[in-house]
Amino acid sequence: MGHLTVCAPTMREAEQLVQPMIDLVDQGKPRAAQSSRSHEEEEKKKKQEAPLVAIVMGSDSDLPVLRPGLAILTKFGIPYTVRITSAHRTPSWMAQFASSASSSSIKVIIAAAGGAAHLPGMTAAYTPLPVIGVPVKPSIGDGMDSLLSICNMPRGVPVATVSINNSVNAALLAARILGAADKGIRQVVEKYMRDSEKEVRVKDERLHEVGAEVYAERYLGK
Amino acid sequence: MGHLTVCAPTMREAEQLVQPMIDLVDQGKPRAAQSSRSHEEEEKKKKQEAPLVAIVMGSDSDLPVLRPGLAILTKFGIPYTVRITSAHRTPSWMAQFASSASSSSIKVIIAAAGGAAHLPGMTAAYTPLPVIGVPVKPSIGDGMDSLLSICNMPRGVPVATVSINNSVNAALLAARILGAADKGIRQVVEKYMRDSEKEVRVKDERLHEVGAEVYAERYLGK
Amino acid sequence: MGHLTVCAPTMREAEQLVQPMIDLVDQGKPRAAQSSRSHEEEEKKKKQEAPLVAIVMGSDSDLPVLRPGLAILTKFGIPYTVRITSAHRTPSWMAQFASSASSSSIKVIIAAAGGAAHLPGMTAAYTPLPVIGVPVKPSIGDGMDSLLSICNMPRGVPVATVSINNSVNAALLAARILGAADKGIRQVVEKYMRDSEKEVRVKDERLHEVGAEVYAERYLGK
Amino acid sequence: MGHLTVCAPTMREAEQLVQPMIDLVDQGKPRAAQSSRSHEEEEKKKKQEAPLVAIVMGSDSDLPVLRPGLAILTKFGIPYTVRITSAHRTPSWMAQFASSASSSSIKVIIAAAGGAAHLPGMTAAYTPLPVIGVPVKPSIGDGMDSLLSICNMPRGVPVATVSINNSVNAALLAARILGAADKGIRQVVEKYMRDSEKEVRVKDERLHEVGAEVYAERYLGK
Amino acid sequence: MGHLTVCAPTMREAEQLVQPMIDLVDQGKPRAAQSSRSHEEEEKKKKQEAPLVAIVMGSDSDLPVLRPGLAILTKFGIPYTVRITSAHRTPSWMAQFASSASSSSIKVIIAAAGGAAHLPGMTAAYTPLPVIGVPVKPSIGDGMDSLLSICNMPRGVPVATVSINNSVNAALLAARILGAADKGIRQVVEKYMRDSEKEVRVKDERLHEVGAEVYAERYLGK
Amino acid sequence: MGHLTVCAPTMREAEQLVQPMIDLVDQGKPRAAQSSRSHEEEEKKKKQEAPLVAIVMGSDSDLPVLRPGLAILTKFGIPYTVRITSAHRTPSWMAQFASSASSSSIKVIIAAAGGAAHLPGMTAAYTPLPVIGVPVKPSIGDGMDSLLSICNMPRGVPVATVSINNSVNAALLAARILGAADKGIRQVVEKYMRDSEKEVRVKDERLHEVGAEVYAERYLGK
Amino acid sequence: MGHLTVCAPTMREAEQLVQPMIDLVDQGKPRAAQSSRSHEEEEKKKKQEAPLVAIVMGSDSDLPVLRPGLAILTKFGIPYTVRITSAHRTPSWMAQFASSASSSSIKVIIAAAGGAAHLPGMTAAYTPLPVIGVPVKPSIGDGMDSLLSICNMPRGVPVATVSINNSVNAALLAARILGAADKGIRQVVEKYMRDSEKEVRVKDERLHEVGAEVYAERYLGK
Amino acid sequence: MGHLTVCAPTMREAEQLVQPMIDLVDQGKPRAAQSSRSHEEEEKKKKQEAPLVAIVMGSDSDLPVLRPGLAILTKFGIPYTVRITSAHRTPSWMAQFASSASSSSIKVIIAAAGGAAHLPGMTAAYTPLPVIGVPVKPSIGDGMDSLLSICNMPRGVPVATVSINNSVNAALLAARILGAADKGIRQVVEKYMRDSEKEVRVKDERLHEVGAEVYAERYLGK
Repeated sequence: MGHLTVCAPTMREAEQLVQPMIDLVDQGKPRAAQSSRSHEEEEKKKKQEAPLVAIVMGSDSDLPVLRPGLAILTKFGIPYTVRITSAHRTPSWMAQFASSASSSSIKVIIAAAGGAAHLPGMTAAYTPLPVIGVPVKPSIGDGMDSLLSICNMPRGVPVATVSINNSVNAALLAARILGAADKGIRQVVEKYMRDSEKEVRVKDERLHEVGAEVYAERYLGK
Repeated sequence: MGHLTVCAPTMREAEQLVQPMIDLVDQGKPRAAQSSRSHEEEEKKKKQEAPLVAIVMGSDSDLPVLRPGLAILTKFGIPYTVRITSAHRTPSWMAQFASSASSSSIKVIIAAAGGAAHLPGMTAAYTPLPVIGVPVKPSIGDGMDSLLSICNMPRGVPVATVSINNSVNAALLAARILGAADKGIRQVVEKYMRDSEKEVRVKDERLHEVGAEVYAERYLGK
Repeated sequence: MGHLTVCAPTMREAEQLVQPMIDLVDQGKPRAAQSSRSHEEEEKKKKQEAPLVAIVMGSDSDLPVLRPGLAILTKFGIPYTVRITSAHRTPSWMAQFASSASSSSIKVIIAAAGGAAHLPGMTAAYTPLPVIGVPVKPSIGDGMDSLLSICNMPRGVPVATVSINNSVNAALLAARILGAADKGIRQVVEKYMRDSEKEVRVKDERLHEVGAEVYAERYLGK
Repeated sequence: MGHLTVCAPTMREAEQLVQPMIDLVDQGKPRAAQSSRSHEEEEKKKKQEAPLVAIVMGSDSDLPVLRPGLAILTKFGIPYTVRITSAHRTPSWMAQFASSASSSSIKVIIAAAGGAAHLPGMTAAYTPLPVIGVPVKPSIGDGMDSLLSICNMPRGVPVATVSINNSVNAALLAARILGAADKGIRQVVEKYMRDSEKEVRVKDERLHEVGAEVYAERYLGK
Repeated sequence: MGHLTVCAPTMREAEQLVQPMIDLVDQGKPRAAQSSRSHEEEEKKKKQEAPLVAIVMGSDSDLPVLRPGLAILTKFGIPYTVRITSAHRTPSWMAQFASSASSSSIKVIIAAAGGAAHLPGMTAAYTPLPVIGVPVKPSIGDGMDSLLSICNMPRGVPVATVSINNSVNAALLAARILGAADKGIRQVVEKYMRDSEKEVRVKDERLHEVGAEVYAERYLGK
Repeated sequence: MGHLTVCAPTMREAEQLVQPMIDLVDQGKPRAAQSSRSHEEEEKKKKQEAPLVAIVMGSDSDLPVLRPGLAILTKFGIPYTVRITSAHRTPSWMAQFASSASSSSIKVIIAAAGGAAHLPGMTAAYTPLPVIGVPVKPSIGDGMDSLLSICNMPRGVPVATVSINNSVNAALLAARILGAADKGIRQVVEKYMRDSEKEVRVKDERLHEVGAEVYAERYLGK
Repeated sequence: MGHLTVCAPTMREAEQLVQPMIDLVDQGKPRAAQSSRSHEEEEKKKKQEAPLVAIVMGSDSDLPVLRPGLAILTKFGIPYTVRITSAHRTPSWMAQFASSASSSSIKVIIAAAGGAAHLPGMTAAYTPLPVIGVPVKPSIGDGMDSLLSICNMPRGVPVATVSINNSVNAALLAARILGAADKGIRQVVEKYMRDSEKEVRVKDERLHEVGAEVYAERYLGK
Repeated sequence: MGHLTVCAPTMREAEQLVQPMIDLVDQGKPRAAQSSRSHEEEEKKKKQEAPLVAIVMGSDSDLPVLRPGLAILTKFGIPYTVRITSAHRTPSWMAQFASSASSSSIKVIIAAAGGAAHLPGMTAAYTPLPVIGVPVKPSIGDGMDSLLSICNMPRGVPVATVSINNSVNAALLAARILGAADKGIRQVVEKYMRDSEKEVRVKDERLHEVGAEVYAERYLGK
């Protein structure tokens, strides 16, 4: 291959100059969920597909909170990547990952953090992509500190905050954001909403039929 | 013109069936901000352009809170529409507007509300589009009730919450969401971030040069 | 009939004196619940009677919180119906149920919801009937978000809020509301208050008799 | 009388179509308030009518908070009486008033109090009538203490709590409670809801017509 | 008697020097509790002595919270009586007990309640005696509602509030109040403070001697 | 003397009947304050009388908050002394004053402080006297930090906490504490309660007479 | 030199006795600030001295909050530098400044920020120096979000948090930190504490002399 | 010695490259802790070394919270002493210890306390040394009372507050404070930060390699 010299005052601006070429390369990606594959195969497959969503967390202890959201992305056939980019313990790596995300296939970033939760806001400071913040409930306190550390960003750097530990809504929001421009994904979102509606209607009919006492004993086990 | 009969069990599903045709019509829209036009002309122009963002509020008393955000959208050249769709006083109109938004040119909805702020959540219940919630500080209390009424949506229906009264971040988030798929808008976001960075650096140099006492007196007037 | 003269310094004390006789009369009342029937029969019976109270919830997971309140309504002989009408997952069904309630036999609606609890407020937006809101404690947080999402309705659409998970008070409030116009129900409420008073007085006498140490060991088991 | 067929997709929309006729009929109603009478005459009139609602407060300093609610009752033609029955400074008088209320014409009690707000709960302890509590914002603090002192009643003695200083919603709730059994009052509540809906729709049309900038300047004066 | 000169830089240190002698004298005091009597005998004894402190609670479920405080009163030899006087379920009995307390031997009232905790404030409204309020943590929430419902009394009716569930401090405060006029009780309070000081000093010496690791393992069992 | 028979259903109501006579007798009492003396004379007088109450504060900026409480003590004829004993800036002086208080004429200490309000708790650590804590609202925040820093004392060292800035209740509590052993002071407290009751009853009658509209305009000036 | 024997019961009291002499010696110290120089000269002087403390803020709007702290540093003769290093708008510059601080003369960093206050924590992530965080009260809310975003750092990256807007305590803490190793600075801190103590004692004497009424009028102007 | 040229785009990255060599050098350092000694020997050793840090607590029940912090100090080779100096139960001992600390080898004090946590602030009032406050979560409540009682010190007496129960950060902050003047300790802090960074990077690589599902099952056991 030939080579390319880019001159720019900062690394960040240089990245912006080469971005058209990167975008060219990004095109042509296959996508659709076959949820029957084994985990290992899925993992291999995911690496082959260029991810549309990056999920970052400050510590691997946040992973259990994120898993229901990952399940939604898998179910919706949206390729993603998961990384640990601690704002406090690996600030340079966090900055590097966030800065380069928009030059890759990634369109949305989900960032989870607890306590003085700086990861979502710092990620948003380094990228022009939409960043969704998931406050993680810490071991002490009710998690309002996490929520407000993420939500109360100053004018200029927005983070799309969801409720505490609610990685499902973070994933659904990522799908809605992708769906704003991708009709296929929007239809998946719509189907999810219709299924959810049907499920509640079925339960309501059942409750109406058998009454509250029987329903509680038979279907809720109490 | 010919005509089209659509059969579906509900209005909502019918709308989904005709959506491909609507999308076809939606294409080809011109866009770019010429901020020098008068308000009246701008208004006329906006009606000609199909809006990408809808801003809804529960009461016209929320409009002053939203105006800084509208200024951002105007500055970024993103066409928008503003409506009053009260969840409590006009529930049917709210439901109708939210249900039909995804069949129009609209890609993102910003919803502002205060107190028991139901508008963002109810809008999200009726649309598959991403909904950004702006909590509005009520006359009594600090607005945490507004923020939590918007943020603490149950699993299944996400709202992207920003901080209280922060319509600027709601608009910037809308721009980032649009920019995820639209390179032109993303570049506008990147320029905004670079300008913001430069502005702070200039102030820092100035402060470093003259010292805190002189800076405060000369530039902050105190 | 013979007649009875009761002398007492206040009306309330006079009522207490005649209470044994009132209790006697209460036993033959058709409205009073005979709790010996089986659940299935009760259910059948309830469907035959036109319900005066509708209890709606956003999810069947809220049912356990509501059951102590349902027990009060059953005990008071007040017919009711229980439905799942999620504001977020079945917004159209919720709107339809709430809109049509005042055209049926229903006089009061009890609505339970947790987190960004929109169901009570949205129900009140669609009906002119009195709506009682029961905040449900979510799995994360202390439930103040639920309480304020229900209580802090804007001027124009009231919800009668009770404390978190307190379906008993919601049911008693429904009974008081019905009792405002229905003397039979008001007498049931009055009897409930007198019984409650008697129960406390008996415990107080016992505690006074045996002392705190013995009472705690003998009656509280600690 | 002739008869009228109205075709509409939903009941609610049908109601909106026939609303002009309903409004016409409403004008001759004896209960409707003619707000042109002088205050003195109104006062005299009120004493002649047996009050359906009693409004009690702990101090005359709470009266300004209650006045918007009194205006609603007057507008709806619902007779009421206003008293000062401090739980802390006049406990015996409070007990006497609350105990005897259900033997008079009163059907609903609205009780307003601030700080350690005991009046609504103590009133509810002495009466079987529905009691609506209005938390009053004290001079220090945000009023959450008032709200919780009223709302967090133990199982057995319910208070229907509205939001802080919201006497309008207390009055509307009283009207809905009376309307549960009185069709005339329910129609007044329905008309209020329709008028409120119309008012918002008119503003929305206007905003849509002139745009946010012009609307803010012309109609909000900013 | 002989006499004793004690030289010390401050009064307090002088008191510490003479403390062994004071402790000696304390042992013969009639007021001091001999905790070897059986509960039944103690109960009998208490009824013979006119109580100086009344402890009232809203429900017998509050009794376990009060017992550590009762143990302090017993240890200090202060006679007391315990009653259930619910403000919400037995308002007339509560009023009667509180009104008549100051005509009996009672000098201080301790009142415990949870949630919308009205008992301490209502008791204070009916008596000129000092009332100490013990907020009881309810099953839902952190108990701040209880604390503020007791503490935030309006100007005119004071309640001496202690921290949540802290019946020990309520009892110690009652002892200090009695001790303000009764030297014997004040000396018991002073001895309690000295004993508490000695106990901490012993632990500190031990910790200093063995070090934190050994102390934790040997004395805290972890 | 002649004698008087009073018939009333309860003791309290009987007391109200004989209250004019009690008030007559009260006028000659030596303890009652004659508020016509000048401040200087009062000051001189106070120094001659041994103070029963000490009021301490952390900073002279807290004095305005304390003055309404001082006015109550003056009105009740209770001698007091006021000192600045900052726990943070004059810890040794604070310790010295608190340690020696119980050896003087002082029976009760009122301590006011804001923010990390340590003065009341530290004072209580150095004295066996009852200490009343007055949380002072700081310039930033709602004062809940002050309240909890005072109220949440550990088991062993009680502080009698009143509500934020409520020096009136602190003074009334001091009077009740002194009145527990001093009949003269207790009668002054009782008279204060009766006067307060009368004042409310007069306002209630007036409001009942003229109605809410006229009352608000004529007596509240709005 | 001659020598001086001071007799006092405690070390602290002895220090107070010798304090006039210490103050005398303090006056010739080279570090002590001569506040008569002009701002410009001071600025020049500061640049010549290598700064020991760096004060960083996220926005120049935080400067007014910091000025009282800068005045303390100037008064104590501690050289400092002030910079704007926004974590959100200039993340790279923030990282660069924080990373290189420990290689310069700087020993302590004070970082001020409001809302989702990331600057102190991010600075601490990039430096091994002690970082003091000053939460700045934002325009909306009470500033608890700022405080917790700074204080609730995860294990591993500490920030020394002071109270909201309290730049004075941040500066004093920086002086104490420097004083831990620099005896000259520690003596300046000790003198500050003694002066503060003296100032309170003088006010207390004055208050004791003239009484609360006269003091409030004469010295507080109210 | 030979010399080494390291090329890297930033200082920080260069540091990472030379880090293996630094680590090698670190191993021979006299200060570094050899954790293989028995507790008894360590204790003896600690008494021989003059402590640089004093850790004080109000009760031995706070010791378990402090142990992770003590482990950090031991690991860093920083000698310390641990004492119980209750502000409420041993106020004189607390004052004596705090007053004399700065005359000993101690450079930093860590003070832990819960509830109305007065120990850190009172210690700071008696010493010119930097005081680090560790709020301890009490058995009732979330610990915000502890945090604010420590953090909200008035201007003049600073306490460096860390988050609730976070003794690790208190110890790290003490190390950073000592490190400001002691290069050896600063290098230990830097090594700790690098190790922490490496640890996260390793986990991130692993997660990236195996994917979230496998990682959660294999390394988190869920």
